[in-house]
Amino acid sequence: MTKTIDITELCLRDAHQSLLATRMAMEDMVPACADIDQAGYWSVECWGGATFDACIRFLNEDPWERLRQFRTLLPNSRLQMLLRGQNLLGYRHYEDSVVDRFVDRAAVNGMDVFRIFDALNDIRNIRHSVQAVRRNGKHAQGTICYTVSPLHTTETFVEMAERLVELGCDSICLKDMAALLKPQAAFDIVKGIKTRCGEAVRIHVHTHATTGVTLVSLMKAIEAGADCVDTAISSLSLGPGHNPTESLVAMLDGTGFQATLDKDRLHRIKNHFAALRPRYQAFMSNIIGVETDIFDSQIPGGMISNMESQLKQQGAGDRLEEVFFEVPRVREDAGFPPLVTPSSQIVGTQAVFNVLMGRYKVMSSEFADLMLGYYGKTPGERDPEVLAMAAAQAHKPAILERPADLLKPEWEALQTAACALPGCDSSEEDVLTYAMFPQVAPGFFGKRAQGPLNLGRDPEAAAPASAGGAPTGAQSGDKALR
Amino acid sequence: MTKTIDITELCLRDAHQSLLATRMAMEDMVPACADIDQAGYWSVECWGGATFDACIRFLNEDPWERLRQFRTLLPNSRLQMLLRGQNLLGYRHYEDSVVDRFVDRAAVNGMDVFRIFDALNDIRNIRHSVQAVRRNGKHAQGTICYTVSPLHTTETFVEMAERLVELGCDSICLKDMAALLKPQAAFDIVKGIKTRCGEAVRIHVHTHATTGVTLVSLMKAIEAGADCVDTAISSLSLGPGHNPTESLVAMLDGTGFQATLDKDRLHRIKNHFAALRPRYQAFMSNIIGVETDIFDSQIPGGMISNMESQLKQQGAGDRLEEVFFEVPRVREDAGFPPLVTPSSQIVGTQAVFNVLMGRYKVMSSEFADLMLGYYGKTPGERDPEVLAMAAAQAHKPAILERPADLLKPEWEALQTAACALPGCDSSEEDVLTYAMFPQVAPGFFGKRAQGPLNLGRDPEAAAPASAGGAPTGAQSGDKALR
Ligand SMILES: [Co+2]
Ligand SMILES: [Co+2]
Repeated sequence: MTKTIDITELCLRDAHQSLLATRMAMEDMVPACADIDQAGYWSVECWGGATFDACIRFLNEDPWERLRQFRTLLPNSRLQMLLRGQNLLGYRHYEDSVVDRFVDRAAVNGMDVFRIFDALNDIRNIRHSVQAVRRNGKHAQGTICYTVSPLHTTETFVEMAERLVELGCDSICLKDMAALLKPQAAFDIVKGIKTRCGEAVRIHVHTHATTGVTLVSLMKAIEAGADCVDTAISSLSLGPGHNPTESLVAMLDGTGFQATLDKDRLHRIKNHFAALRPRYQAFMSNIIGVETDIFDSQIPGGMISNMESQLKQQGAGDRLEEVFFEVPRVREDAGFPPLVTPSSQIVGTQAVFNVLMGRYKVMSSEFADLMLGYYGKTPGERDPEVLAMAAAQAHKPAILERPADLLKPEWEALQTAACALPGCDSSEEDVLTYAMFPQVAPGFFGKRAQGPLNLGRDPEAAAPASAGGAPTGAQSGDKALR
Repeated sequence: MTKTIDITELCLRDAHQSLLATRMAMEDMVPACADIDQAGYWSVECWGGATFDACIRFLNEDPWERLRQFRTLLPNSRLQMLLRGQNLLGYRHYEDSVVDRFVDRAAVNGMDVFRIFDALNDIRNIRHSVQAVRRNGKHAQGTICYTVSPLHTTETFVEMAERLVELGCDSICLKDMAALLKPQAAFDIVKGIKTRCGEAVRIHVHTHATTGVTLVSLMKAIEAGADCVDTAISSLSLGPGHNPTESLVAMLDGTGFQATLDKDRLHRIKNHFAALRPRYQAFMSNIIGVETDIFDSQIPGGMISNMESQLKQQGAGDRLEEVFFEVPRVREDAGFPPLVTPSSQIVGTQAVFNVLMGRYKVMSSEFADLMLGYYGKTPGERDPEVLAMAAAQAHKPAILERPADLLKPEWEALQTAACALPGCDSSEEDVLTYAMFPQVAPGFFGKRAQGPLNLGRDPEAAAPASAGGAPTGAQSGDKALR
């Protein structure tokens, strides 16, 4: 009996987020949608993550309108989004009624599958979104961020899965944003979850391709019982992106597993994005091929470049090696958070501060918040001395509550502020846009009527210019690009 | 019990052959050799294949001197080469005494492991080289070219392995030059060979990365009992090249298999080639990422570009689609040869002829030779009508003998011709160089004294120039580059 493995296609969201700095314009995705809709995917990830931010900051595109267009263009598909739990798509914790409204509006506008994660794997930051999704009758996918540390064992991941199932999640996602998931670990965790939670619990596996091993990890996850894996069409795959959809299909031939996708449609989707990709050269990730250093350093590539530029700004570009040694110490002091947005930036910046100014002599307010529990609970014990220093420097106490429990109802204030902005249409969607990006939304509302920008450039026209991302088109003065 | 998997490193031969058109200069490899020698590889492939030709045609480098240098620089390593059986490194069949002398001189100059294959998998074309290697007390690796056709089953590959073992081969290589080897096929073939020939028979697996699935195939081959797999250091890997060495090592973590390589040395080797690779930009393969079309078309990428340029020369660039349909018919008429050099070019060119001038109205002399058995026996029956047309057009009969059996002793004539050339030093090595490349050797002998060329260019110096491979350095007039 051949088991059919479901596939989630990432080309409309994470693939261009990972490879092209989330810059792909909606109009460049539209022509591929008919084939994507009919190719036989289990779901199509097309919204959330950084796309919302990129839409209003760079593309002058209404992200809600983008969602509605996808709903129209992909009538037979499950639309899927990535949601940062209590952070929604923004960078702070929101009070529960804001979470409710966000999920409601996403569902009403067409979202089907909500993949919900928290950077610290603090399940309390996931719970309310899951409940909101279930209340809307949509698919709530509870997500485990995979990371490597002395505290993260197969058992801890299996336990987290168990708790997500108890929350009422419709499926579990094992999410490996840094391509750290090796084949045996993938097998053990998936097997562990199936054994503990029952074969009927759906498991999805999300990996990136950066380290070159994760297609093997997907094979092992499938052998262990995974039900669905995430891939991106080959012309938008690999490097810091994902494993190629067509390779996944070919990999399964004869194995007792199969992916029943329409090859002709895959071929057309591939050709569409292959032709398009060079237009986004200016935004393309520098990483091509594979990068396995992260297995030893545990420091994701994006985090390294951040720290490098911070050091250079301080005239200390030669001290990166010291920072590399400091990162694991800071991570340990903070109780081994997974290194994923935003914890990777917070830990990295503090490591830079420690090297330049002495250990914890100066603490970023974000790092103090992380130590004091304002992002949630980190997996391990936090260092008591560093915790005390954080409380002293931030002039506030450590908390044990769920961070959102400290927030007062905020919807009305958000609504009042948003509706006062020129160009705001007073819809709940606009209020939510403002709530998540209060700095960016006013500018976006003001020029929304000018219509979307397409930052893609004809590669031949782009060739003589110097590197950089100057947009083409009538609205090339868009200051948000800077 | 963790089984140690041996690794053959390809960076000094197949990796730059596949990615950089075999153009890497010896001086650019020298600094990496100390680390390569100590990293713990089972063998280091560094000679043979297209390197011999490239040395004398493009690099003004004596390939025998290159071998002696590797012997000195890699004192602790098994040196490995790729040998095309009775073709040696040239493009015709050689009489047995020439094969003997070539193998003798390669062994004397330092070669340890001879990977011997025939493009048609005709074991008669492999036999004499294997005997010569064994007479020299070196490692003879009998090679199976993996291909896909109605005639190529697990059973046929296992049978071929059995015959290679009977020949006295020290190990078997399953060689997948087109990245067609899917995971289950890899498992079945390796398992089949181990079952039929015994667990003690060493199996090596060589794959390319083109289709994106073959790291999984290596995993499955290892699970089935493969003893050694081929990889290339990450900075010279992927695309039409190979799977990255570091990813292979990481892949095995915790699986019950391990590769015991020195990670610090791998890191230095990686950095060395990462810094070097941009210097060879002009020669770099256009293929990046993965290409899975070949699974359906069975037509390797290099063959497509050849056929495309042949069509364009005839003003028929729009007829590629017709040629795609013709290739499998020609291949079937010829008895399903594997599509690998030189059979891929022979079949491809004939398909172009058929489309442009009618089926077999004009036959290339090479295709006639293929039909008539002058390359050896193709796996299946050849079409009798096409066979008759070949005999009529070529004015010669079909043969059943081993092609080399028709050859008269030729060493003395080769020696006389070579020694008459200005610059030939009358060594057996020089005679062999002439024997294999009679068109190129005279020019090489004449300017050998000028010393090696390095075709690498500083990427910044190269940037303003138009595309193309003009060399830098004092000898930039080298006409062989054209
Ligand atoms: Co991702
Ligand atoms: Co090869």
